[in-house]
Amino acid sequence: TSLLPRNHWPLLRDNEEVCVFGTGDLGRSLGLRLLQAGYGVVFGSRRPHSSSSLIPHGSQVLGHAAAAQSGHLIFIAVQREHYDFLVPLANQLKGKVLVDLSNNLRKNQYPEANAEYLQSLVPGAEVVKGFNTLSAWSLQKGPSDANRQVYICGESVQAKQAVMAVATKLGFSALDRGFLSVARELEDFPLQLFPQWRLPLYIATGLSAAFFFYLLIRDIIYAYFTQGKDISFRIMVSLANKVCPIVSLIMLSLCYLPGVLASFLQLYRGTKYRRFPDWLDRWMLCRKQLGLLALGFAFLHVLYTLIIPIRYYVRFKATEQNRTTEFDTTTAWSGDSYLSLGILGFSLYVLLGITSLPSVSNVLSWREFSFIQSKLGHLTLLLCTAHTYLYGWNKFLSSSTYKWCTPPGYMLCLVLPSVVLLLKLLLITPCVDRTITRIRQGWERRADQRNPKNSQPLIP
Amino acid sequence: TSLLPRNHWPLLRDNEEVCVFGTGDLGRSLGLRLLQAGYGVVFGSRRPHSSSSLIPHGSQVLGHAAAAQSGHLIFIAVQREHYDFLVPLANQLKGKVLVDLSNNLRKNQYPEANAEYLQSLVPGAEVVKGFNTLSAWSLQKGPSDANRQVYICGESVQAKQAVMAVATKLGFSALDRGFLSVARELEDFPLQLFPQWRLPLYIATGLSAAFFFYLLIRDIIYAYFTQGKDISFRIMVSLANKVCPIVSLIMLSLCYLPGVLASFLQLYRGTKYRRFPDWLDRWMLCRKQLGLLALGFAFLHVLYTLIIPIRYYVRFKATEQNRTTEFDTTTAWSGDSYLSLGILGFSLYVLLGITSLPSVSNVLSWREFSFIQSKLGHLTLLLCTAHTYLYGWNKFLSSSTYKWCTPPGYMLCLVLPSVVLLLKLLLITPCVDRTITRIRQGWERRADQRNPKNSQPLIP
Amino acid sequence: TSLLPRNHWPLLRDNEEVCVFGTGDLGRSLGLRLLQAGYGVVFGSRRPHSSSSLIPHGSQVLGHAAAAQSGHLIFIAVQREHYDFLVPLANQLKGKVLVDLSNNLRKNQYPEANAEYLQSLVPGAEVVKGFNTLSAWSLQKGPSDANRQVYICGESVQAKQAVMAVATKLGFSALDRGFLSVARELEDFPLQLFPQWRLPLYIATGLSAAFFFYLLIRDIIYAYFTQGKDISFRIMVSLANKVCPIVSLIMLSLCYLPGVLASFLQLYRGTKYRRFPDWLDRWMLCRKQLGLLALGFAFLHVLYTLIIPIRYYVRFKATEQNRTTEFDTTTAWSGDSYLSLGILGFSLYVLLGITSLPSVSNVLSWREFSFIQSKLGHLTLLLCTAHTYLYGWNKFLSSSTYKWCTPPGYMLCLVLPSVVLLLKLLLITPCVDRTITRIRQGWERRADQRNPKNSQPLIP
Repeated sequence: TSLLPRNHWPLLRDNEEVCVFGTGDLGRSLGLRLLQAGYGVVFGSRRPHSSSSLIPHGSQVLGHAAAAQSGHLIFIAVQREHYDFLVPLANQLKGKVLVDLSNNLRKNQYPEANAEYLQSLVPGAEVVKGFNTLSAWSLQKGPSDANRQVYICGESVQAKQAVMAVATKLGFSALDRGFLSVARELEDFPLQLFPQWRLPLYIATGLSAAFFFYLLIRDIIYAYFTQGKDISFRIMVSLANKVCPIVSLIMLSLCYLPGVLASFLQLYRGTKYRRFPDWLDRWMLCRKQLGLLALGFAFLHVLYTLIIPIRYYVRFKATEQNRTTEFDTTTAWSGDSYLSLGILGFSLYVLLGITSLPSVSNVLSWREFSFIQSKLGHLTLLLCTAHTYLYGWNKFLSSSTYKWCTPPGYMLCLVLPSVVLLLKLLLITPCVDRTITRIRQGWERRADQRNPKNSQPLIP
Repeated sequence: TSLLPRNHWPLLRDNEEVCVFGTGDLGRSLGLRLLQAGYGVVFGSRRPHSSSSLIPHGSQVLGHAAAAQSGHLIFIAVQREHYDFLVPLANQLKGKVLVDLSNNLRKNQYPEANAEYLQSLVPGAEVVKGFNTLSAWSLQKGPSDANRQVYICGESVQAKQAVMAVATKLGFSALDRGFLSVARELEDFPLQLFPQWRLPLYIATGLSAAFFFYLLIRDIIYAYFTQGKDISFRIMVSLANKVCPIVSLIMLSLCYLPGVLASFLQLYRGTKYRRFPDWLDRWMLCRKQLGLLALGFAFLHVLYTLIIPIRYYVRFKATEQNRTTEFDTTTAWSGDSYLSLGILGFSLYVLLGITSLPSVSNVLSWREFSFIQSKLGHLTLLLCTAHTYLYGWNKFLSSSTYKWCTPPGYMLCLVLPSVVLLLKLLLITPCVDRTITRIRQGWERRADQRNPKNSQPLIP
Repeated sequence: TSLLPRNHWPLLRDNEEVCVFGTGDLGRSLGLRLLQAGYGVVFGSRRPHSSSSLIPHGSQVLGHAAAAQSGHLIFIAVQREHYDFLVPLANQLKGKVLVDLSNNLRKNQYPEANAEYLQSLVPGAEVVKGFNTLSAWSLQKGPSDANRQVYICGESVQAKQAVMAVATKLGFSALDRGFLSVARELEDFPLQLFPQWRLPLYIATGLSAAFFFYLLIRDIIYAYFTQGKDISFRIMVSLANKVCPIVSLIMLSLCYLPGVLASFLQLYRGTKYRRFPDWLDRWMLCRKQLGLLALGFAFLHVLYTLIIPIRYYVRFKATEQNRTTEFDTTTAWSGDSYLSLGILGFSLYVLLGITSLPSVSNVLSWREFSFIQSKLGHLTLLLCTAHTYLYGWNKFLSSSTYKWCTPPGYMLCLVLPSVVLLLKLLLITPCVDRTITRIRQGWERRADQRNPKNSQPLIP
């Protein structure tokens, strides 16, 4: 069932021959892809005879010197450590375009970029850095939507154009990033590990740790000191189920706070044409990650809540206590509303998460995306905040709630979402909303110094 | 970590220069994209000096009149309100191609389309409407799978071809929609808010409201009238947990009913070559949305069911009542089967939902997609219907079930899925299935008037 | 709201005319797509007059013989059964390129491929097989990321190049698979039904069946024989909830076992340049499917666990038994840890599932993808294994656990994950890890026969 052809490969071949130095995974995958795009491929190898069984059908393998003759463009699919084999070939490589595909194992592994090192070894050749963000695997699979873009850099415009032409024919879209001095930056790309998730993850970890210790003291250590009871087993579920919703709600507020702040900043400045401060810009850029982490914590909260009745402790208590009190309709109302708001909030949360999937958000128009992420997002925040308020509705005024004079965790976590919701409420009052809309459409308050046409509202 | 280049931008530039009027978000993003594609970009601005810090590196900004000289193609990234600045430029714009990118804030905001208005202001230029479905953000990010398609229209074929060439170079695929009179339609695209979801959402809302009031009367008002008990707190969870599964099951049936109807229609007509009536066509087109909404209600039902044991009311009742009856194996069997069928049904539901994600359904072959959506879909319906039958298996014949002579909600909601399953059962009986298959392969019953070859079954 | 144009279709038309035989769904969709790409389209039909209302605006329909005159390229969108109408047209078709789009209803339906049959009927024409993996629906929708690739084969290089040029213009990327003898293989593609899922599904079914009968004997039949109790109702939930987690854990181990084995094989061989045995290769290729099925079973396990307190049987037992034993903190600790580990394991499971979605994994860099699938994957396995160990932590040494001398299911299922985790532990010890890393970077142990440069470690 393999889709690789068998017998009749090289039917459609352009006259052009391309050379690939190196018969490792990357070299072979690149060669196969080049063959499929209609190029002739000549591999250069240290041991042409032993490599000939490895290379794709339709290509040939020669020694490096012989291979270098056959093409104007040479892909160097060899690790930097072995670049010195190119030094004796300097004559054959003069005027050729060498494409450096190499990556490093960690940042700052070498004093200069691999491509710059290559150029210093073979000064007569035109070195172009590129394609290094592609793995052997993605080369074999062909370009997909996410990895269609490749970056190149180099000194010679002609050399870069030649490489870009090949990239286009392989189905990639190449972007020229400048001179060879940018190579270092390109070589660092594949080493990045979730750069956009870092800050949100730090925030989530910090918040979790802070609330974990706060609640540990308030719940478990307090019980030990005042009543001498060891209820440390509650750490595993009860405490986790307090930390998760608290962190989730705060992260969700942090996801919507920067948008609200940005609106107030625009309102204060009276224009949308001034850049936001850097910290706000960076904050805005990680809203998606903040929201998805909040969803993760909400998911944990749901699971921790649903297993409550299975717990040994809860089942034990249920059989122990035989309540004889009256049935209280108010408690039933508030308890059920609390649960219902939580369920609705979580469902909207999940909907927000689903529309964050790349393939789903791609299908949405800008208006649809902003409707979901802004309108439904704030509704989610409202439902979850109301859910939390209802949780402690009758405990706010009871003094026994404030053990050691500290408020419970859910009260602390209500501060931020309440502020965000209040600010948002201000923003959607008709008069503020009208001004914001005008600013977003390009209107500027201090229009006296400018074109007077601009000072009129856009929608009369 | 920004991928935008820094120092060495305009290395690869075609000779062609393109002009962009307007230095707002949209204009700048478009200009950046044009630069990346190798065009030279000249911005036209009211205040060239104050704008020069805003525009992307490698482009230049001039006054409108000067900028208009530099290119044959001019993108108008300015709001319609400010179009009158173009009137004095009429001479410079003669023969140029003006691309109208504008959108409106709401439908029917102006008597004529923006592009037609632009044409009336500058009659000597060739106005092309286009690119307006793209946001500044999607222009910056580059074309992705979903927004690769852009629509253009205009009077001049040459002008449209020039614009299409630019679109192709930017990575979009442009579709010519006709003359400038279509511009209005194009300008309405970005204002659409989930047009395909509207009908299914109306149906879901209508069904929810109807069953909510029906059950409110049957459960809560009935209890109040006959026993004087106030059990209104049940609205929040118990009632919601009845409405959700009912609406979910009906929506799921509505998702599979049109396919069954279409088969019977083809069977009755004896051909697949006649168009379905409009209502059926429209119904077929929103099956995916009907199914996804049904999944949403099923998800709510699952959550509402799982929190039952946490409810105050349920915990109260559990400690109150000390049942002394015998353990009944039949009840245990039916109860567990009921739960198990629900779980299996919901899991398949989720599987159907996952395969509806664009990126997943894209990976499936047509045969695989129809296997999941048709075979597994009907299996889901069967499981969920059986789950509902088991819920009330011993209550159908008890007269106490029919309060005020009305059947309970779950009985009402069983009608439609039962009908769909019965009809589907008919369709998969061997003889009917064979005829349907032949019709789908192009066979027609009334073959006497036609080519006799056709009247033979395709598979002898 | 249809995006299909209405009045002004054929504005942009290249001079080239293409012919489509057949006005069925496939022919019409193809014709529409050709029109949109700028080709002129002439349909050939048995009944030109009655078909003229069906074909897309801007195309024309003629009799087959007349239509064949109008284009050099003829798409045959007709079923193989009707190919004999082409025999009398042999003269008109001489030298033309015939593109065979047909598919069969099942494998080996005919002795020879449809394209070879077509070639035998019209020996003077150049037959090219191709486009048959596309449905009418995907043609209408246009190429998306997943179905952009089309395969063609045929004898004539010129004919294939002509077809590939059309494919490119329609937005597809065509891959030449060789001579016409490959046609059979291409015709089998669309008939495949989840070929990669087959083996994992067989394994899942086999494991489920085996453990179901094993547990049926141990739990239900054992109780009947030794105590005479009929607890068969437990099949529906209790037994299912034992089979699901067992199968899930085993499948998850099977997903990570081949990677570990491959590492040991590389370690043993001292090189990465020798191919893995075929069985290991095939096993590695279905890891994703094994993992996703494991996630499905874990999902069922979660649902089955969460409904426990709702069950009639459980509620009955709860009211019956009035435990008077002391509260045991150790039991509370282990019970809560057991639940907490399960929740964390399941959440990571879901995270792995989400990153397996095509659109999500496309966005990840190779390093990010391998971090999630390898590091987080093994962590998931660790959490789930620990969860299972905690389930039976105090039962391993009790003789009453071993009914009829058989160990309980969860003990059996712990064998494989424990082995995988132990092997993985060995692999990540510093000295083994260093060797593996060097091998993966191209280092070979038996370097004496080779280039001495290679024998040095890559990272000094």
